[in-house]
Amino acid sequence: MPIITLTTDFGLSDHFVGVMKGVILRIAPNMRIVDITHGITPFQILEGAYTIAQAYSYFPRRTVHVIVVDPGVGTSRRPILADAGGQFFIAPDNGVLSMVYEKEKHKVRAITGEKYFLKPVSDTFHGRDVFAPVAAHLARGLPPSAFGGAIEDYCRLTLTKPVRTGKRFWQGTILKIDHFGNLITNFPFSEFQAFDTRPFEFHAGQAAISLFARTFADIRPGELALIAGSSGMIEVTMNQDSAARKLNVAVGAPVDATIW
Amino acid sequence: MPIITLTTDFGLSDHFVGVMKGVILRIAPNMRIVDITHGITPFQILEGAYTIAQAYSYFPRRTVHVIVVDPGVGTSRRPILADAGGQFFIAPDNGVLSMVYEKEKHKVRAITGEKYFLKPVSDTFHGRDVFAPVAAHLARGLPPSAFGGAIEDYCRLTLTKPVRTGKRFWQGTILKIDHFGNLITNFPFSEFQAFDTRPFEFHAGQAAISLFARTFADIRPGELALIAGSSGMIEVTMNQDSAARKLNVAVGAPVDATIW
Amino acid sequence: MPIITLTTDFGLSDHFVGVMKGVILRIAPNMRIVDITHGITPFQILEGAYTIAQAYSYFPRRTVHVIVVDPGVGTSRRPILADAGGQFFIAPDNGVLSMVYEKEKHKVRAITGEKYFLKPVSDTFHGRDVFAPVAAHLARGLPPSAFGGAIEDYCRLTLTKPVRTGKRFWQGTILKIDHFGNLITNFPFSEFQAFDTRPFEFHAGQAAISLFARTFADIRPGELALIAGSSGMIEVTMNQDSAARKLNVAVGAPVDATIW
Repeated sequence: MPIITLTTDFGLSDHFVGVMKGVILRIAPNMRIVDITHGITPFQILEGAYTIAQAYSYFPRRTVHVIVVDPGVGTSRRPILADAGGQFFIAPDNGVLSMVYEKEKHKVRAITGEKYFLKPVSDTFHGRDVFAPVAAHLARGLPPSAFGGAIEDYCRLTLTKPVRTGKRFWQGTILKIDHFGNLITNFPFSEFQAFDTRPFEFHAGQAAISLFARTFADIRPGELALIAGSSGMIEVTMNQDSAARKLNVAVGAPVDATIW
Repeated sequence: MPIITLTTDFGLSDHFVGVMKGVILRIAPNMRIVDITHGITPFQILEGAYTIAQAYSYFPRRTVHVIVVDPGVGTSRRPILADAGGQFFIAPDNGVLSMVYEKEKHKVRAITGEKYFLKPVSDTFHGRDVFAPVAAHLARGLPPSAFGGAIEDYCRLTLTKPVRTGKRFWQGTILKIDHFGNLITNFPFSEFQAFDTRPFEFHAGQAAISLFARTFADIRPGELALIAGSSGMIEVTMNQDSAARKLNVAVGAPVDATIW
Repeated sequence: MPIITLTTDFGLSDHFVGVMKGVILRIAPNMRIVDITHGITPFQILEGAYTIAQAYSYFPRRTVHVIVVDPGVGTSRRPILADAGGQFFIAPDNGVLSMVYEKEKHKVRAITGEKYFLKPVSDTFHGRDVFAPVAAHLARGLPPSAFGGAIEDYCRLTLTKPVRTGKRFWQGTILKIDHFGNLITNFPFSEFQAFDTRPFEFHAGQAAISLFARTFADIRPGELALIAGSSGMIEVTMNQDSAARKLNVAVGAPVDATIW
């Protein structure tokens, strides 16, 4: 039984997600559908890019991942189908797959096979009319080539990693604020292990942070620290408290680091 | 494998929804359960009516839809089972199926077959004790007639559509505020295409709106507009911003339109 | 097809829950996964204990329940596997199973079979690296003994029930605030039926309550009352309004009762 996963900024208070599942199950009654999250901050493409890149590799081969964070719905942005790492990704061509592209060899197609869409296609709900039915037909066994031809000019985001703007200075951003109020930055620990071994000063919001903690137990109450999160990214964290509430920052806010 | 869908105002922070699923799976282990939403505003029957009416038609024939928005739980309001459009609907008899009745030929039964209930039936959680087990037995194959006889005096809501109170003047209401802050009104676009072709003034909260937009791209930053939403209803919207936050209105608030 | 349920404080806005499901499905492709809730207040172990104790008995025999409310993640607290009431429970050994232990004969094992973990085990996401894979292997059919030996010194919480501190005086706590704003206390109605038959004064936040209501219809608008909730616990409630908002109290706040 194949799997389709859903990652959107639709929230859970409307009929949107339920309707996408109905559309899938009418086409592919045996499909298993797994929600990654519907809590992407509305229109935050980079947050969507981070989230699917964190999740896909834990799923079986040939899983079909549907990602709908789509501020351009109703404009001419294309729907795409990417084949990467032995799995499939269906999304608008707005860069939301950028962090998958960085991790995996990939092939991207523009989805032009409109006969698989729900008609009439609305201007505002392509999750229902385009992405869900294409995912269902693909997961049922249609080959990717049935949906459209390969393209090279697909969209890729910058800001998936920090930019070095001085000898000891990097500028980055906040990819995600998690449920516990940790700020997930775009600094990968694998490339910034220096936080663990060298003196540094990290800025987020109005705060300057110079503690790197290996576990939460190393952090005193009320103190801010960096940690290498389960995501592999450097996170700004507190011990059983919310760094996001303390710092009052949002997804997309700038951060920077000086490492000596 | 049959499908049971769930639409409630229970939220997702309690055990309520999980327990309903446990009850279903003990009776019908192979059942597939799909959440439409559990985010109906507590006790807002009309919002529940709108939500299930938006969703049901995307599901396969013979799907069993359970809708629990039930301010009268513990009083003498009846549980009902409706057969409409080739699908089944199980709900309290408080009008929450009104917008399904408007779209489909239907037959409504009062559920009196208490032998299918979980005993003792609590005064506050009929989702667990009445609606879930009835849905499971129905989806497993019991005929609707096993649960009770047909009735004619079931409850129907007014306000599912606007009321004309002047030659050029209609009064309506807000059915739903969606995750993006759009206000879904009870004006169906199919009956009010005049918004697209004639001058109008639409009031919601303190605002007067006279722009009808065909896509979000037609709306300037900060501007309010009407749009024909994916729901088929007229929505008050902004471009990548929340009309609900700007107007500070709630589900059930009045709106009105003058169309020249 | 066996069932795995998930109860966590992870929320639904991150990839955490989706990733746990991916891990389970790679090991056990046919598993059915049911969310109890991911809305436990972060780090509130007693609330988690209450929630799983409310839910488990509605599921079929041999269901595997995974409970992750885990402020000690990354420290030396043990993962455990409990066999109770014909079902299985996988959780950190921090007392989150205390209210299951009170209801059922049980056997507890320390999970030491690291070969079933995802490697490397992170310091912050044992839901993914420890609890999900162990649950999947157990639900697929490995015997509990494969994961570790029985222990007797597992953690049990006090405060699961009120403490009598005077002839007519009991002190308790708030286990949970539900979606409707009801305060679920740790007073079981089965042991405190006197609320229904004798004069009492109950304190929660700044309020003194002396009305016990059998149904919501007995409560006037704006009035606070006690009710015997569907949970079997005494709840502080209002009629179609939020007691939690009125009283401004949080999970873990003290309550007390004088019963004459």
